[in-house]
Amino acid sequence: MTASAVVLPRGFRAAGVTAGLKASGRPDLALIANDGPDHHAAAVFTSNRVEAAPVTWSRQVVSDGRVDAVVLNSGGANACTGSPGFLDTHRTAEHVAEVLGISAGDVAVCSTGLIGERLPMGVLLPGVDAAAAALSADGHNDAAVAIMTTDSVSKQATAVRDGWAVSGMAKGAGMLAPALATMLVVVTTDAAAAPEALDAALRHASALTFDRIDSDGCMSTNDTVLLLASGASGVIPSQAELTEAVTAVCADLARQLIADAEGAAHDIEIEVRSAATEADALEVARSIARNNLFKCAVFGNDPNWGRVLAAVGTTRAAFDPAQLAVTMNGIQVCRDGGVGDDRSLVDLSGRQVHLIVDLNAGDATATVWTNDLTHDYVHENSAYST
Amino acid sequence: MTASAVVLPRGFRAAGVTAGLKASGRPDLALIANDGPDHHAAAVFTSNRVEAAPVTWSRQVVSDGRVDAVVLNSGGANACTGSPGFLDTHRTAEHVAEVLGISAGDVAVCSTGLIGERLPMGVLLPGVDAAAAALSADGHNDAAVAIMTTDSVSKQATAVRDGWAVSGMAKGAGMLAPALATMLVVVTTDAAAAPEALDAALRHASALTFDRIDSDGCMSTNDTVLLLASGASGVIPSQAELTEAVTAVCADLARQLIADAEGAAHDIEIEVRSAATEADALEVARSIARNNLFKCAVFGNDPNWGRVLAAVGTTRAAFDPAQLAVTMNGIQVCRDGGVGDDRSLVDLSGRQVHLIVDLNAGDATATVWTNDLTHDYVHENSAYST
Repeated sequence: MTASAVVLPRGFRAAGVTAGLKASGRPDLALIANDGPDHHAAAVFTSNRVEAAPVTWSRQVVSDGRVDAVVLNSGGANACTGSPGFLDTHRTAEHVAEVLGISAGDVAVCSTGLIGERLPMGVLLPGVDAAAAALSADGHNDAAVAIMTTDSVSKQATAVRDGWAVSGMAKGAGMLAPALATMLVVVTTDAAAAPEALDAALRHASALTFDRIDSDGCMSTNDTVLLLASGASGVIPSQAELTEAVTAVCADLARQLIADAEGAAHDIEIEVRSAATEADALEVARSIARNNLFKCAVFGNDPNWGRVLAAVGTTRAAFDPAQLAVTMNGIQVCRDGGVGDDRSLVDLSGRQVHLIVDLNAGDATATVWTNDLTHDYVHENSAYST
Repeated sequence: MTASAVVLPRGFRAAGVTAGLKASGRPDLALIANDGPDHHAAAVFTSNRVEAAPVTWSRQVVSDGRVDAVVLNSGGANACTGSPGFLDTHRTAEHVAEVLGISAGDVAVCSTGLIGERLPMGVLLPGVDAAAAALSADGHNDAAVAIMTTDSVSKQATAVRDGWAVSGMAKGAGMLAPALATMLVVVTTDAAAAPEALDAALRHASALTFDRIDSDGCMSTNDTVLLLASGASGVIPSQAELTEAVTAVCADLARQLIADAEGAAHDIEIEVRSAATEADALEVARSIARNNLFKCAVFGNDPNWGRVLAAVGTTRAAFDPAQLAVTMNGIQVCRDGGVGDDRSLVDLSGRQVHLIVDLNAGDATATVWTNDLTHDYVHENSAYST
């Protein structure tokens, strides 16, 4: 899908501007306004106990199921900034509320960038004014671009249904890990749906999408996924319909996040089959996704299935080591826990890697998406704050 | 300590030879014989559920507290090789027993190298003959060299006490993780000690040393730490004396392992202070030691304390985020969970990094040693099997 194909659902306006938070001079402030008639919302946040000020704030804002606007900035995470940092977030929300004529308690705030630095409020607040002036029903792309940090492309997705639609934007390229990644995601819909319905849809979607991508096992302090509904379509989808469409958009965004992960040379789909339980399958898949040695081997186009088994062996999942099988890009390199087909038959020269691990312990399955560990990952993450 | 300073305790002979398992032509087979009068032993093994054939074998051998000889090979892990692989290990032990005139049930076997390949027995068994012929009281260094894989130097240590001594050799450079690393360690002593005393000493020592180094969070299939006692000194140390000396040797070897970790540019000592419990302190230290983003930052000489807090936040340890403090090489860059002294004062240009994380939640403390994540780590581990 091309970014230009994504439009805002009815009832929303958005904008992305350059406030001056980024040294690069690229767009760094986005604003999304829900003009209603409904202002329903749900959200999921990072489970990191060290949470950024905007997370603490937005958690409170969303708790009553109402959000009128979201302001997002790149160029600074406002994490580990103490009480002064929280006041900066509060002041940002107050300013958005003043400009838009709404209540600060209905303004969610998201920030992303370096941890441990105060935001330059003298630059940020005028940026809010500029963004408010630029709000437009065509602003989805501008907003998506303004929340990028080390992303190489903006991430946008849409699902058009019968008379209503769901659209989403995401930023995130590193620090991707279950529950959640370093990601900011705003999903909007013109469906009419109560906050409880939005919450159920978003939790289902996140569990199957954002919680199953893991670029480097690192969990951020700022992750926020917001779902806003304007009701402007007048259509009331069933819970199943709503959940399906929201999940489709989240799945699309999750794939885009992994495909653009920092420095990645391979996208790796880890499918664990015939597990005793889904929890077992997930534990095994995540263990492999976090194994640096396996990820380095994939970078080197090396079908090193021994490292896969070594990762499986660290889990508590039900399995018999003598019954494990591993298939890489169609070649079953490990069978009955030992040597299978000739590893030299495995072609890892392309970007897509499909790993299937067969536990032979039941009927459950789960898939986690990750990427390889490369020179570029090390480079980008050793130079980030300098 | 220089390798030449390490001698075998009385009662032991060792040898290291080139059997031809390594394409490089470097030494690849070591033999250590305990000539008694005691043949007491204890061991700890990997907790990986996918364990190599030699681990399964040696676990059984050590279970009665008696080991007469240890044969170790590099150039092949004999892991994930199924029943044929186990028969290879058995045959190796039988051959050692035959040549030395002992029982195969008293011969421990250790292997290290690539997973998922059979060992070339036609090359290995003649190597055993050559090693047996070369056994010597001066053979500690030769044996230590023969067990090296990607190690750049051999690891040896010794602790001389009043009339008795403990010596040790280790191999391991990557895949270092608690319980245990990719390491083979053989520690010998001429003290007179029962298997139970050896077991207690070794478990205490491992918990504080090998279990607290973590180079890349990856746990191997082959890890084995053996402690053999000949009783040849005639000295019966107290349990405390024995434990102290064994721990000193293991600590020395553990430091050498981390200092030689694959591709490392910095050695990082992670000290967690004022935790509610030692378990909390350990969980926090290990979480930081496995955080790729923090480890990349250290590689880039970047005192990115925000990544430290993000790692702390993923743990279940007792702490208040607003009370956390982080000190890097003497500069308290984070205080009260927020910005502390100027990060630009931190000098990370040397190899040693001392990170102190203060949880302000109690009196317990723990230290874990790790290293940074570098281009060379990625390079070495993407090219390993090719």
